Parts: sequence; C-alpha cells; structure tokens
Amino acid sequence: MKRYKLIIEYEGTKFCGWQTQVQNNSVQQKIEEAIYKFCGHKALLFAAGRTDSGVHAWGQVAHVDLPENLTINEGNLLNAVNFYLKPDAISIVECVKVDEFFHARFSAIKRYYQYKILNRHSPCALLKDRIWHIRKKLNIAKMIEASKHLIGKHDFSSFRAAECQARSPIRTIDYIDFKFDNNIVTVEIAAKSFLHHMVRNMVGTLVLFGQEKLEPAKMLTIINEKNRSAAGPTAPACGLYFMKVEYD
Amino acid sequence: MKRYKLIIEYEGTKFCGWQTQVQNNSVQQKIEEAIYKFCGHKALLFAAGRTDSGVHAWGQVAHVDLPENLTINEGNLLNAVNFYLKPDAISIVECVKVDEFFHARFSAIKRYYQYKILNRHSPCALLKDRIWHIRKKLNIAKMIEASKHLIGKHDFSSFRAAECQARSPIRTIDYIDFKFDNNIVTVEIAAKSFLHHMVRNMVGTLVLFGQEKLEPAKMLTIINEKNRSAAGPTAPACGLYFMKVEYD
Repeated sequence: MKRYKLIIEYEGTKFCGWQTQVQNNSVQQKIEEAIYKFCGHKALLFAAGRTDSGVHAWGQVAHVDLPENLTINEGNLLNAVNFYLKPDAISIVECVKVDEFFHARFSAIKRYYQYKILNRHSPCALLKDRIWHIRKKLNIAKMIEASKHLIGKHDFSSFRAAECQARSPIRTIDYIDFKFDNNIVTVEIAAKSFLHHMVRNMVGTLVLFGQEKLEPAKMLTIINEKNRSAAGPTAPACGLYFMKVEYD
Repeated sequence: MKRYKLIIEYEGTKFCGWQTQVQNNSVQQKIEEAIYKFCGHKALLFAAGRTDSGVHAWGQVAHVDLPENLTINEGNLLNAVNFYLKPDAISIVECVKVDEFFHARFSAIKRYYQYKILNRHSPCALLKDRIWHIRKKLNIAKMIEASKHLIGKHDFSSFRAAECQARSPIRTIDYIDFKFDNNIVTVEIAAKSFLHHMVRNMVGTLVLFGQEKLEPAKMLTIINEKNRSAAGPTAPACGLYFMKVEYD
C-alpha cells in the first residue's frame, strides 16, 4: 500500500463532524466515498483530530492507504478526490505521498486551533455559523490574564468532556494568544494534543472572566479542582477552526 | 419625519441584491418589511450603493424617514428591526438619528470596497460564495503595476456596465491596495463614487494582467479606449464586499 497525507478544509456546519457515525454525512465518509468513486477502493481515513459537527477546518490532516497498483500521482489524486467531493463544502488542499511510519494522529507534534468571537450588540450576518456571537462587551484584559494560568503542563480534567477517551488528562498548552479586528476576537491556541472539547471548554470558561463573573486568579482554582463542573460551559462549535498540524 | 442612518451588514448570496425588484427578496425590501412589521409604517430606504445579487456588505449605509410620532430611541429601533429581520442574513449594525440634510447616497464623500480572490489550485470550501476562486497562480506584481494607471481622475467608460445610469463616466479612484494572506488576495479600492459594475470590471481586468495576458502599460490603452469591450470581463459578484461609506 502507498500512504498519502491529505490537508483538508471544510465548512463544519454542513456535516455531522469528522468521524463517521450512524448518519452518513461525516467529512470522513464524504472523502472515503469520493476515493471509492474514482478508484473503487474502500479506503479508511485517519485524522489528526476528530472535529465535532459545526467545527470548521482550514488544515485538518488525514492519512489514507491506497493500493500499490493504483498508478496515480499526488496532483491527480487531489484533483480526482476534489472532483468527486463536489458540491460538498470539503476541499483537499494538499496531497503528499508519505512513508508507512507517518500517522496523521500519532505523528503530530503540534496542533493549532483558532476560536472566533463576534463581540458586538448586533447579530451576525456575514459570519453566521462561523463565529460565536456575544452581545455584551467582554473585558479582554481579564480573559488574557486568566488564560496565562492555562499555559504549560497541567491536569486539564476540568476542561475535559465526559466522553473523552484519552488515557491521561495531562496536556501541555504552548500558547494562548488573543487577536482583535474590529469586533472580532480571535483566540489562538496550540498544543501537542488536546482532550475532547478542551478548546471549547477553555474558551467557554475564559468568557466567564471576560464577563467579569470571575476574577483571573480563580482560573488556578478551576484547574486545581480537576472537575468538569468547576469550569465554564462549552463554547459553541461554530466558532472553532482547526488551523493546522505540525509533524516532525 | 425623523431621519435615521443605518449601517447594514449582509450576506449577498441570499438576496437578489440591494434594490427591490420583481422578486421580493432584496435587502432593501427585507429591511422595509421589518420596519413595517414593528411600526406599521411603509418606509422607503435610500442606500449609499445598490449592490448586485451575491455582493456582500460589511458596511452598507442607508437612510430612512420615520414618523415624528414614533417614540423610539435609536437603540430600540436597531433591536426592533434586527428582531424582525431574523432569520435573514442581514444585520443592522448601527442606527443613528441624522438631520434632514443627510442623504445616504448624495452626502457620501468616500466609498470603500474590497474584492477577495482565492488563488490556489484546490477548490473553495470555507469561503464558498465569499471569494473568487482562481486556480492558476497570479502574477500579483503585474496586477499592482497595472492598477497604478487606474488611480486618479479618469473617464472610466471602459469599466462601466451598459446599464449604468450615471450622467458622467468621470470618476476619481483614491487608491487601489493589495493585501495577501496565504492564498487570499484582497484588493482594496476607494473612491467618492463608482460607476455601475466598475469595481468588478476593474478587478476582472486586473486579473488579465495577473495572468500575464497583458503587459501593465496596456492598462493605459484600455482606459483611453473609453469602450467597455477594451477591458476584461466582470469579476464574479461573490468576491465583492462593500466595506464602508464616509460622510462629512
């Protein structure tokens, strides 16, 4: 078998998430179907991260093994899959042949996410389903201060979904940066890996600080409680973007 | 009557354009209906620019006259109109009381547009209907060079739609700037006013230079011909954003 690495962009609103479930409109299934349509091979995709329904990707990464006897170069493979993906809101942005030791999930050394908040009184129009709309002005300075406590190696049990299957709740956050453009707040987060719902749970909690419901030092207590109920709500899926994955 | 200035955001794909036509899904009509629903007044909106179907707005401006006896403040007016606009992809971002001499179209002293091009091989996913997708690499340096000839006061007949109702084809372009972010090229254009389709016709022509079909100096000839057939095709509506309007 030949292994290919795919970089994938998609509009999460249109799908039940990355992973194939009972409904048949997962991003994974759509791509597997497109591969089947052009070469008759029942491929299985492995992704760097299983995004939930509504979560978008600029740079999801997956790998797939295709038969040795399939004589197709990377460029044609990309074109063929994109052709059969139409009109779905999924695009294979890059396709590269990799060796058999490459694994989209296990070889990843860093994952980058962005979370977008529209912080203004008026409703969304152009960014509907693409951003979390929060009407009341957030105190961003408080959010930044609280976020500092999350950086580094911690037990992130307080930010871990009940369904999370990871063996350990220990993770290391490399950075959390805040950017502003008019009324749009972008939170950029990077780590080797994340727990299930971890980014959305961190953002949902950071917003409580922005709303001045909690003082920044309280973030330490939340982490130390190691209990999901100590932290804030899960931020909506629509604001989350899986940006890119780094490999060795 | 009391006059109000509205700043309006909308996703152009969903509407037949700004202006009310035979079909009843123009942005103008949707807002007029929303106003009627909350106060029973048949208002008439006047916009700074009549965008075509598919053209988006971050900052369209319109004014509307409402009866003196309507006792409502600006904030409540904004909320009421936004309430009745749901679930349409239109949002009133600002509402300000202005004097009777304010006219959204005639008082404008500068209009700002952006045109977005996704310049990469792979199709759009996240920016479907929000950007012009051009597969082959554009020579941006050539586009910038050609664009210099458009800046300043010219007869823009070569970039004017046949349906254009303006009395004079003379316009003054203040600037044309290019910005890059990954594979996204953003062309920013400002002028006191534009002819019908002028921005899209300029961008469609600039792309010919980016594709190296024409040498930059040829732009002068195109302008001097004062004939629509001398210039390039009209760029698709989906890449165009009406950004803001400046008033005295």
